[in-house]
Amino acid sequence: MRQHKLALCKEHYLEWIPAQTERFIKKYEMFTHYEKVLVAVSGGKDSLALWDILVRLGYQVDGLYIGLGIDGGFGYSSESHRLTQEFADKHGLKLHVVDVEKEYGQPIPVLADITHRGKGRPCSVCGLAKRHVMNRIARDMGYAVLATGHNLDDEVAVLFGNTLNWMGEYLLRQSPVLPETPGLARKVKPLCRFYEREMTAYALLRGIEYIYEECPYAVGSKTTYYKELLNQLETDRPGAKLTFYVKFLEARQQGLFAEKEKIQTPLTPCPKCGQPTSAPGLCSFCRLMERAAMTTIDSAD
Amino acid sequence: MRQHKLALCKEHYLEWIPAQTERFIKKYEMFTHYEKVLVAVSGGKDSLALWDILVRLGYQVDGLYIGLGIDGGFGYSSESHRLTQEFADKHGLKLHVVDVEKEYGQPIPVLADITHRGKGRPCSVCGLAKRHVMNRIARDMGYAVLATGHNLDDEVAVLFGNTLNWMGEYLLRQSPVLPETPGLARKVKPLCRFYEREMTAYALLRGIEYIYEECPYAVGSKTTYYKELLNQLETDRPGAKLTFYVKFLEARQQGLFAEKEKIQTPLTPCPKCGQPTSAPGLCSFCRLMERAAMTTIDSAD
Repeated sequence: MRQHKLALCKEHYLEWIPAQTERFIKKYEMFTHYEKVLVAVSGGKDSLALWDILVRLGYQVDGLYIGLGIDGGFGYSSESHRLTQEFADKHGLKLHVVDVEKEYGQPIPVLADITHRGKGRPCSVCGLAKRHVMNRIARDMGYAVLATGHNLDDEVAVLFGNTLNWMGEYLLRQSPVLPETPGLARKVKPLCRFYEREMTAYALLRGIEYIYEECPYAVGSKTTYYKELLNQLETDRPGAKLTFYVKFLEARQQGLFAEKEKIQTPLTPCPKCGQPTSAPGLCSFCRLMERAAMTTIDSAD
Repeated sequence: MRQHKLALCKEHYLEWIPAQTERFIKKYEMFTHYEKVLVAVSGGKDSLALWDILVRLGYQVDGLYIGLGIDGGFGYSSESHRLTQEFADKHGLKLHVVDVEKEYGQPIPVLADITHRGKGRPCSVCGLAKRHVMNRIARDMGYAVLATGHNLDDEVAVLFGNTLNWMGEYLLRQSPVLPETPGLARKVKPLCRFYEREMTAYALLRGIEYIYEECPYAVGSKTTYYKELLNQLETDRPGAKLTFYVKFLEARQQGLFAEKEKIQTPLTPCPKCGQPTSAPGLCSFCRLMERAAMTTIDSAD
């Protein structure tokens, strides 16, 4: 690990990653051993590794798998569901499963298609649906905290995109911890300071079976493009990604940005689902669902 | 010009660039026709084009050439001095010339060497000396405004570097206009929204003879590296540089950042040269000069 000037053998690496995770959990005050944590698991290396690490660290943590109904020619969703379920069974862990098609009538790609949202890509609909479901399950099942497996590369790509366009609201919000707000569990990203390759190494060394394929819709996305550009920067200037992310958090903490209240739109509960929204009426997810229902009725006519 | 969805013939292009410059001068309230402007001219395309444009727009503008004593195997400084002087003579313009070696005892590369400043590159010493001389001449000769030829690519590379490291003070300060402060003329960058290739096209179409070579010390510099990375981004996403820069200025104007006073170190006049400095005693330039003088005495011993 050039950015830390550190080289570890397998045994110490498998100790170092959880120890570092524990350090970040404490540093950013993510959660305690007394709180119930729900980890959103996709079947990929990051989220399965996160679940593994949190369990090893002795936290009370259950999993949530959201079936998105994405095939991509190789059964992306069914395969990732299988691997997630196997991981849960092998370690005797509790896994909640929400199938988008069963609960909301259509799989994600169809929802995106019929609502014409997202410029030919289902990614924005997918993100919206996942956020809605994660928030709902965390609230309904009484979890204090919702944890996701975003790694440093994920966070840096998002930060980079938001910075290139100076998206003020997003810059103020991107954080390893989003505090609880009425109707929303606290959200945390315990892996946010690990490089993607560090998580791959952890998953492989730990023998976690995860889905190797990326989501088929990620190919050619803006985030993927930023990741490639940032990988080039990192190759030329090792540590650049970590510096960009950590210095951003530090600068914000030290007061570089305006107070959130000056920039951010206030939130009110959605009259249908109760989740906080910045929209004046229904939240984006409930509006999407209404549009999908109308389109389905139209096509049935 | 893909970013503007605009294609112009030579005649209209040569009108469009000054008209746009005038628009930026007014938009950012850079200066008026009643103020005396000093333009810092390096002999490169940007600063000579800027001088050309400002004269054509009817502003009261004189030039300042700073002889840095850089050779690089092809007489970089002497050639750029010759071209600058020719431009001034051809158009009957007034050019101030300051030769660093004559006035301060050593050319820039030697000053950098003997003071061990800048990690083997004279760029930081060069920037420091140029800022000092420009400020001094503007103040001593009674110019209200100091104009430099920084183009969009220059500004974006600096902004990018400062953003990658979240350098708060620099982010708050980078601007098309730095207002006058006690002892310092107002500083303006009228070309800050033109791509480098737009300025090259202007200089070529206008028949300005400028030095084609970059400063020999620019090769392999951090700024050059950022420019290359940003060129790649611009190729893949036309307009990305302009968006990054303009949205930054807009976001700051709209209050994304904290008040300058919260972040910035207060300035006091240097007891030797009188220019404002954030240092407690002598300014960086005067300290550099003292160190250089001491080193020269040491070697003479």
